[in-house]
Amino acid sequence: MDLASLRHRVSAAIDPEMRVQPGLSPFNRLVVTGIIGLIVIAVLETEIHVIRHYGWLMEALKIGLFLFFAAEYALRLWVAPLNPKYTSLWRFVRTPAALLDLVVLVTFVTPFLGLEASVFRLLQLTRILRLARLGRYSRALNLLFDAFRSRGTELLLSAMLALGLMLGAATLLYLVEREAQPEGFGSIPRAMWWAVETLTTVGYGDVVPITPLGRFLSAITALCGIGIIALPTGVLAGAFSDAIRRAREDRLHEHPHGRE
Amino acid sequence: MDLASLRHRVSAAIDPEMRVQPGLSPFNRLVVTGIIGLIVIAVLETEIHVIRHYGWLMEALKIGLFLFFAAEYALRLWVAPLNPKYTSLWRFVRTPAALLDLVVLVTFVTPFLGLEASVFRLLQLTRILRLARLGRYSRALNLLFDAFRSRGTELLLSAMLALGLMLGAATLLYLVEREAQPEGFGSIPRAMWWAVETLTTVGYGDVVPITPLGRFLSAITALCGIGIIALPTGVLAGAFSDAIRRAREDRLHEHPHGRE
Amino acid sequence: MDLASLRHRVSAAIDPEMRVQPGLSPFNRLVVTGIIGLIVIAVLETEIHVIRHYGWLMEALKIGLFLFFAAEYALRLWVAPLNPKYTSLWRFVRTPAALLDLVVLVTFVTPFLGLEASVFRLLQLTRILRLARLGRYSRALNLLFDAFRSRGTELLLSAMLALGLMLGAATLLYLVEREAQPEGFGSIPRAMWWAVETLTTVGYGDVVPITPLGRFLSAITALCGIGIIALPTGVLAGAFSDAIRRAREDRLHEHPHGRE
Amino acid sequence: MDLASLRHRVSAAIDPEMRVQPGLSPFNRLVVTGIIGLIVIAVLETEIHVIRHYGWLMEALKIGLFLFFAAEYALRLWVAPLNPKYTSLWRFVRTPAALLDLVVLVTFVTPFLGLEASVFRLLQLTRILRLARLGRYSRALNLLFDAFRSRGTELLLSAMLALGLMLGAATLLYLVEREAQPEGFGSIPRAMWWAVETLTTVGYGDVVPITPLGRFLSAITALCGIGIIALPTGVLAGAFSDAIRRAREDRLHEHPHGRE
Repeated sequence: MDLASLRHRVSAAIDPEMRVQPGLSPFNRLVVTGIIGLIVIAVLETEIHVIRHYGWLMEALKIGLFLFFAAEYALRLWVAPLNPKYTSLWRFVRTPAALLDLVVLVTFVTPFLGLEASVFRLLQLTRILRLARLGRYSRALNLLFDAFRSRGTELLLSAMLALGLMLGAATLLYLVEREAQPEGFGSIPRAMWWAVETLTTVGYGDVVPITPLGRFLSAITALCGIGIIALPTGVLAGAFSDAIRRAREDRLHEHPHGRE
Repeated sequence: MDLASLRHRVSAAIDPEMRVQPGLSPFNRLVVTGIIGLIVIAVLETEIHVIRHYGWLMEALKIGLFLFFAAEYALRLWVAPLNPKYTSLWRFVRTPAALLDLVVLVTFVTPFLGLEASVFRLLQLTRILRLARLGRYSRALNLLFDAFRSRGTELLLSAMLALGLMLGAATLLYLVEREAQPEGFGSIPRAMWWAVETLTTVGYGDVVPITPLGRFLSAITALCGIGIIALPTGVLAGAFSDAIRRAREDRLHEHPHGRE
Repeated sequence: MDLASLRHRVSAAIDPEMRVQPGLSPFNRLVVTGIIGLIVIAVLETEIHVIRHYGWLMEALKIGLFLFFAAEYALRLWVAPLNPKYTSLWRFVRTPAALLDLVVLVTFVTPFLGLEASVFRLLQLTRILRLARLGRYSRALNLLFDAFRSRGTELLLSAMLALGLMLGAATLLYLVEREAQPEGFGSIPRAMWWAVETLTTVGYGDVVPITPLGRFLSAITALCGIGIIALPTGVLAGAFSDAIRRAREDRLHEHPHGRE
Repeated sequence: MDLASLRHRVSAAIDPEMRVQPGLSPFNRLVVTGIIGLIVIAVLETEIHVIRHYGWLMEALKIGLFLFFAAEYALRLWVAPLNPKYTSLWRFVRTPAALLDLVVLVTFVTPFLGLEASVFRLLQLTRILRLARLGRYSRALNLLFDAFRSRGTELLLSAMLALGLMLGAATLLYLVEREAQPEGFGSIPRAMWWAVETLTTVGYGDVVPITPLGRFLSAITALCGIGIIALPTGVLAGAFSDAIRRAREDRLHEHPHGRE
């Protein structure tokens, strides 16, 4: 096998857009595994207890991952000109995706960055998303995005309604509770913290109304919170129901005599 | 251009009902931006930390917004008689919307109102709603309101069921926990506070049963809380699914040969 | 007008089953209002602060409500034999509904019952339900009950799944946290309290895992809690969607040329 | 009646696969009741207060249940060869289900296991699931599993989205709050605990942001939590709606002239 044909085979294995078969290549599945490893390490090495007990393991894994991703980046540089989208090496290097990968590689060799390097490495999550869009999740991703897009205005309106309700509830509780609890309800932005907690039904309990009128208004706010959850859920449920039915009808239209 | 034609053009720019094209005019988009600014300032100026550091900025922005809205109000007075709905200036001034705008303008020049002025200014939120109803959100708003109206009785029944369940749970916990915790469960209204927290799954945790029987009943109440969320969500999801299907069928009916 | 025809008119006004027109009679709407008043007083009079300030008002309202409901009961005794369902006075008196109403009347004249009398009076809530079933809510109530009944097995299965998950999560956390927190996780029933709080997303926060493994398992439990909410909601949404579609198709079947 | 025909009748009563009629046999309903009793006892006997007061009752019930399940196991050994799936006794004994039942029997006679024996007995829950699959819940179980399987990729994607959001929120809060609260936000894994609590809307309140920027980001995270609940709920609702409609169409196809 000569070098040119090897280069073409490497291109098909590395660049999802140069692959003929559907789904991710075995090499790119390895890349996804590597990114997940990278992210797990980036998350764990911010924890002092992990560093104290498994610091040497973390360092060894990071060196291994750095070598793997450096080699992978070099190979991508080599085969990039084969993809008609880039044509030249320089065009590939300038793409945001390639720049991000370069930044991540650089964070490995800049110890002065300290823990902040972990945060940069988390940006590799976006690369998983990019690969997923090309792999077997593409159809499901399209269904989800279609449902969101087709009901975008209704979902935006639900969010605006939620914001308006939040502002109204915060203002009322500010008027009612500001004297009893200046720390928690002494201004509308402070009362907003309580309103978000209540309307989303999170309810940490760090700020809670104590006056009878405040509790009465809070109860009504909590009940409205059910609507704030029910409204977008109902809109999305209707959108998915519609998207699934349309997909079935399209298939029946193409194969009218077969049954799904 | 003479004054009469200028007045007509101003009317079309300011009064959404006098505009021929769909959507909001550029001027009314500026008004919406101004109202959002007004509300953000009204919210922030209740917070003492903001006033201390950015008080001068707040005052400058308020003067700017006052001049803008005063000029806008004057222009609306000038062009109101052109709208056949009002015919006379006096009829326009008496509409609730115009009265509210006047009140908001007055709050800017009455320093003795203090922070309460901010609360009045929040009423401008309703004007955003009025403008949204005329703008590009009108169709989505209609869909949401239609879904609510078509299943209004079912949603009301869900709310009544929730209230009944709340009352029942509060009464049981009052009977079981009143001796162990007179502060939190010493009366049915007090136990209602716990019941709302639990059935809406907010769960602040400021009032929690401590007796084994109380905890058992509380667990059952929390599980019922799932039904309280699932019932209206399911009703709304069915209503949206139906509304979306009807909208599609109407379109197919009008254009039977085209596909959506 | 002679006595017999008066008795028939009273019967039509009091007994919803003897009424020709649909909906509740004006008299029964008054009864519903009276029951709501009864319940509000029963709830409020358990609160010592209310009794201290408005005790005389409560007593006056209770006397008024007692006289009203005593008169109403007497009238119902008078007209009961006209309803073919009862034929004799004794048969009417023995119905559970009439017995309950008698018990509520008796609680008014037995001061030795104390606050427990309030709890008995709350049982009148069931009478509102009975009247609602005959009034204009009957159609919506039927839709809700149909949706529940048609998917009863699926909802029961969801509940069993939730119980199984709860038991599994409680057992795991009991094994992991019992040494660190014997008070909160020292036995499976105690850990169940935490499991209910977490799976229903109530989250009071009175019992929270503190070991790293306990927190990891708790995080997974909380994520499963989303499924516990999503499953019955999805089942109900599908059931409502189906019920609404069937109702429309039935109407189209009856009036094939009209549009809904 | 001779022994061979008795053996066949016992086989039909004990082995759900050898039963001709649909549903569970009366004997297997008794077995289900016995398993529920076993689990309730396993749960209760971990609680010291129960053991102290009802220890003798627990012991008596355990002896009774042990005798019942030992006899049942012996009968199943006797009739197993009649089922063509096993043919020989040894093949039946080696099935995971029979091994698990044996383990549970052994835990009754090994007092050195202590409380851990209860945990083993909880594994009998899986046997209820196995029997339910054969009983009248089989159709509903199939509907639930079908809905999950048909939308498996979308549900997996929702979970991945939730994980990504969780990681993103935890990283941001770690950067913002680590100095103010090193105990709760000092590393990304610690901040993950807060992120799970917030995105699932559990909200224990043991770790809560205190800086203004942390609270602002937390509010946005809580609002995203609504989406994390709405997305899988909407997907499942659409899947159930579709499954119910398909089931109806299949029935109409088979009986085209009858109405459901």
